[in-house]
Amino acid sequence: MIQPLPGFRDFYPEPVPSPDAWSCDLRQHIFETWRTTSRRYGFREYDGPPLESLELYTLKSGEEIVQQLFNFTDKGGREVAMRPEMTPTLARMVAAAERHYRKPIKWFAIPQLFRYEKQQRGRLREHFQFNADIFGESSPGADAELIALLIDSLRGLGLTADDFVIRVSSRRAWQAFLEARCADPSRAYDFYQAVDKLEREKPEVIDEKLRLVGSSLQEVREFIQASQPTSEIQTLLDELGARGLGSFVRVDYGVIRGLAYYTGIVFEAFDRKGKFRALAGGGRYDQLVHLVSGGKVNLPALGFGMGDVVLAELLKDRGLVRGATQSLSAYVLIEEESLRAESLRCVQSLREAGVSADFPLAATKSDKQFKRAVELAARVTVKLERAPDGAISARVREMTSRSEQVIPPDLVAAHCLGLIHRPPG
Amino acid sequence: MIQPLPGFRDFYPEPVPSPDAWSCDLRQHIFETWRTTSRRYGFREYDGPPLESLELYTLKSGEEIVQQLFNFTDKGGREVAMRPEMTPTLARMVAAAERHYRKPIKWFAIPQLFRYEKQQRGRLREHFQFNADIFGESSPGADAELIALLIDSLRGLGLTADDFVIRVSSRRAWQAFLEARCADPSRAYDFYQAVDKLEREKPEVIDEKLRLVGSSLQEVREFIQASQPTSEIQTLLDELGARGLGSFVRVDYGVIRGLAYYTGIVFEAFDRKGKFRALAGGGRYDQLVHLVSGGKVNLPALGFGMGDVVLAELLKDRGLVRGATQSLSAYVLIEEESLRAESLRCVQSLREAGVSADFPLAATKSDKQFKRAVELAARVTVKLERAPDGAISARVREMTSRSEQVIPPDLVAAHCLGLIHRPPG
Repeated sequence: MIQPLPGFRDFYPEPVPSPDAWSCDLRQHIFETWRTTSRRYGFREYDGPPLESLELYTLKSGEEIVQQLFNFTDKGGREVAMRPEMTPTLARMVAAAERHYRKPIKWFAIPQLFRYEKQQRGRLREHFQFNADIFGESSPGADAELIALLIDSLRGLGLTADDFVIRVSSRRAWQAFLEARCADPSRAYDFYQAVDKLEREKPEVIDEKLRLVGSSLQEVREFIQASQPTSEIQTLLDELGARGLGSFVRVDYGVIRGLAYYTGIVFEAFDRKGKFRALAGGGRYDQLVHLVSGGKVNLPALGFGMGDVVLAELLKDRGLVRGATQSLSAYVLIEEESLRAESLRCVQSLREAGVSADFPLAATKSDKQFKRAVELAARVTVKLERAPDGAISARVREMTSRSEQVIPPDLVAAHCLGLIHRPPG
Repeated sequence: MIQPLPGFRDFYPEPVPSPDAWSCDLRQHIFETWRTTSRRYGFREYDGPPLESLELYTLKSGEEIVQQLFNFTDKGGREVAMRPEMTPTLARMVAAAERHYRKPIKWFAIPQLFRYEKQQRGRLREHFQFNADIFGESSPGADAELIALLIDSLRGLGLTADDFVIRVSSRRAWQAFLEARCADPSRAYDFYQAVDKLEREKPEVIDEKLRLVGSSLQEVREFIQASQPTSEIQTLLDELGARGLGSFVRVDYGVIRGLAYYTGIVFEAFDRKGKFRALAGGGRYDQLVHLVSGGKVNLPALGFGMGDVVLAELLKDRGLVRGATQSLSAYVLIEEESLRAESLRCVQSLREAGVSADFPLAATKSDKQFKRAVELAARVTVKLERAPDGAISARVREMTSRSEQVIPPDLVAAHCLGLIHRPPG
């Protein structure tokens, strides 16, 4: 049998066929939480193509990025690539249309992204990434709004301040640190890369790299330890505090973000136990729209990305995936085939009232029907019955309490709506 | 500036920057209607990778399909293609895992699909397609369930029996017609293709093709005119009638579906005015899982696909896109910067109560704030005010009625929830 490509996922409905299979119910639960939270924050959804000109990526990241891409020449001779990140598409879209929107622009998207990474355990070649960005606002109030959205997106999934923390830092502070030690701005990228790898590379190697820009490992460690908040970080902390979200953030200059284009506050979200890789990361990138638009548009900007893979692992670890499974509200049993037409009408009335309902599509033994209702975790079963005088009534049974009521068939939808919107138990 | 690739769409939030720009609000409105309706019908969501082995497509459709694909050799030397349709992925997933699920399996997905089509006006190279399928049920009750889902997915968008019709036909009836005239089963595909193109190709050309299989254009036209429902079509019509959906379907043997793999009832959805291409199409394909699983799994199956492009055109034509725009519930004005912290707390309380809320991220002139609230179509504005004695109160104003109330700040969220869940006016 043909298999999915290595590093690509199939998403199955619950109950998934094996413990390591990916759940589409969990995926949709995550997406819906991201979407609902974004809308509450007044962020608007956008999307772009999953295939773009290769140039869109080499322009920002240089030719080295090509080795990590799913890129090819299309049938029209164009050099194209499957998107490895959303920011270039977003910057292109904003540069083309920003004059039609009032500022600040607050947008979000949930794209699937692709990287041709070396195959390792748990290293995928695609993932979904929640992206939220703000354009046209340089005040740190925008940074606070963005980080608050990140916090509430995670809280919406049941995670608390005991589960995760946002480590906040400042590219501006690091830039000042560097400029006091090294006059050559072209060294900045190497410096950020070295600090970014502080926790992952050998101390000697890091120290050597830092000495090339006039600093040292010890100096960098002392700077991180001191963690003096800049005035913009202080405003950020004050605003998050006013929202009651202070316990979710910590100043930590150990965070710097590897990419070259960040310009102000940067941040990363981690699980408190340090068991997983970063959950999310982002920051200000005030120059990028200018670069991508070829100098035509100049807009301050900031954003974050949060992937679905580490997040799903954390939710599983914390036992927070149970609520994600879609369940059925009503299962209509058809024990008398002569009542199929009336039962179909009943199913239709339930669905039109917004109640999820299922039933046996063909004549089926009653014990099999009941098993099916249990398997689908139906809240109620409905069974039409014909009295000796020919009158038809509906028997509605709550599955947990086993309480039953017999009512006229045209009251079934309203009755079930009432039962379903009442908490179970 | 770099442009999107030809045939690929950017989706912008409303108000979109130009009349021909694609609206992400409308797209999400369509997706949410598809998803909600599917769940009400007890269909469960799945998804597969947008990139698959090329072989998955050539196996079913032969080598000719390659010229229509975005295919390439990946960095590991694999022949891969961006998915042009969902059915092969679905058949692969079902064949691999069907033993873990009770039958019937009722699944849906909303994949983005890709075809390298010749560039023409309105011909895109990607689209989104709602796919719904049922496995493991051969009774025509399953066909009725599937077509009812199709009807209610369109009704959920505001379309009525005056707007669209499902034309229902039978591959089985056409097969009997063919077998009575031609003993060679290898001719079947050419025959289906000829009948499928009846309305689009020259009569002489069609007639010539039909004569090769022992029939003629006149005979085919007479068979279509007679439209004798088979017994399975009659059951289908009866079941849809019992659901109150009879006015949405019509028997029409002019529909045959071009693809080779259909085996029973087939159908297509069209707008009544005949202004657009087909909205959706599907049918039974009882042999396909057997083929894709290399003979390992045998399951009756049926499904349909509905694209987003023609549907969006029809909705625009019928003026049914207005309700699709996301709007804001509350805009919190901050006229006194000294009240920013209290205002932030108020914004947070609104969002935590599930009310979408926005506010000025930095100090802004009050007329600009008010314009912003209007532009975002906010239902209410909220403004905190400090009395001479220092007490803070909240002024809540309904934008349409202009009625105002002054209440304590910690009642704002509950008050706004009440206003928003009351119909406006």
